[in-house]
Amino acid sequence: MKPLIFITNDDGWNAKGINALIDALRPRARILVVAPDDARSGMSHAITMGTPLFVRKVRDEEGLTVYACSGTPVDCVKLAFDSVMQEKPVLALSGINHGSNSAVNVLYSGTMGAAIECSFYHIPAVGLSLLDHSPNADFTAAVEYSLQIIEKVLGDKALDLPMCLNVNIPVGSPEEIRGIRVCRQNRGYWREEFERRTDPHGRDYYWLTGDFFNQEEHATDTDEHALKNGYVSVVPIQIDLTHYSQLESLHYLCKK
Amino acid sequence: MKPLIFITNDDGWNAKGINALIDALRPRARILVVAPDDARSGMSHAITMGTPLFVRKVRDEEGLTVYACSGTPVDCVKLAFDSVMQEKPVLALSGINHGSNSAVNVLYSGTMGAAIECSFYHIPAVGLSLLDHSPNADFTAAVEYSLQIIEKVLGDKALDLPMCLNVNIPVGSPEEIRGIRVCRQNRGYWREEFERRTDPHGRDYYWLTGDFFNQEEHATDTDEHALKNGYVSVVPIQIDLTHYSQLESLHYLCKK
Repeated sequence: MKPLIFITNDDGWNAKGINALIDALRPRARILVVAPDDARSGMSHAITMGTPLFVRKVRDEEGLTVYACSGTPVDCVKLAFDSVMQEKPVLALSGINHGSNSAVNVLYSGTMGAAIECSFYHIPAVGLSLLDHSPNADFTAAVEYSLQIIEKVLGDKALDLPMCLNVNIPVGSPEEIRGIRVCRQNRGYWREEFERRTDPHGRDYYWLTGDFFNQEEHATDTDEHALKNGYVSVVPIQIDLTHYSQLESLHYLCKK
Repeated sequence: MKPLIFITNDDGWNAKGINALIDALRPRARILVVAPDDARSGMSHAITMGTPLFVRKVRDEEGLTVYACSGTPVDCVKLAFDSVMQEKPVLALSGINHGSNSAVNVLYSGTMGAAIECSFYHIPAVGLSLLDHSPNADFTAAVEYSLQIIEKVLGDKALDLPMCLNVNIPVGSPEEIRGIRVCRQNRGYWREEFERRTDPHGRDYYWLTGDFFNQEEHATDTDEHALKNGYVSVVPIQIDLTHYSQLESLHYLCKK
């Protein structure tokens, strides 16, 4: 029997990116999808606490079952692994996302929130993102490189679990992309320009529009650098947020 | 003139915890609050992308201005620093949260999402949480220890920025709490038990209820251990999620 692969995303179960991935994997795997019923971009690692989650089966075909869920991407993962699933998958995928999740975007990303949550279930987890926000983006190269990475991860007999990879794919044809690079997360932050408007009832409101500031433009070992130079970037992700190098210098906080 | 301190939270501007903190700080600081207009627990680092943000001034007193915002905790921070603020504060606080944000909870926490976002603005940021979910929790000890930590951070002339501290305070009177410990984040994960029900229209829905599994119960240098033993825990937080020790072993991904 073909292996079982779990897939989720943050753009919703009927987005182009997740369906390109599903179509490419169907010949080689059984697929279970639990994904948001609509777009949930920027949801990070959010969970739904005060309201219940609605779930409905939207596709049920040979080797493919798709559930749409009213919650966040992380809700979808929890519901899939702790309630829907009858069998443990060999791999979890999140994406392919419409838009970049490189550098500090990993913090805001629903795609990566879901991938990280999957990695808590002791199987390899891979978040996949294409650097194109457009709903009709061309996923040809993204699918080709995603399959390469998936095959290599599944072929690795000495996987170091927990494992969660943040994969970003630049825009271009498969021939234009120069290869794959394993990198570290680029340092940087977003600054917002809020556009203030007044609604017909006199209430002020703001639209968030931001710019990314790269704090290390000249570094050559980061995901931003790889992507700018036409490579697919792969950043292994960990979830211990302890800033170990600050531990020692903070002991003054303990003094009476 | 008294120093300016920025405060936000995820329980909403009128929660007991944030107001206990405001009341305690008013004698020694001017305070700017931009906080959610209602509870936004479990929102992690989520941002609002598809809809505009509404903001209204809800208090305007000598040395205290409070804005309520329709967005997530991180939206509140971005709006505060990139739009509302006329002057850079000396310190940013998030909380005092009703409920624990120790161990892996840091990932799901709106309180800590906001604190991390504040640290991107080159001032020290401190997330403060009391291990009591109750809306009427007793914040006496939490306020006392929060003030101790705030004073020490503000007195540190060699602050290593960016700095973001995850402070958790156990339940008990100030006399019962044994002191402050600087710790690392405890490893562990949540497993959910979804309670399935059917609504009056025949649709299935699920309530999320989870249990925390501590993966290192016998470690003595973690936040969970400190809290169990009656200490306030302080974990310094960093936002580079790169799993450095896996970088080397993944280079097979780059091979053609």
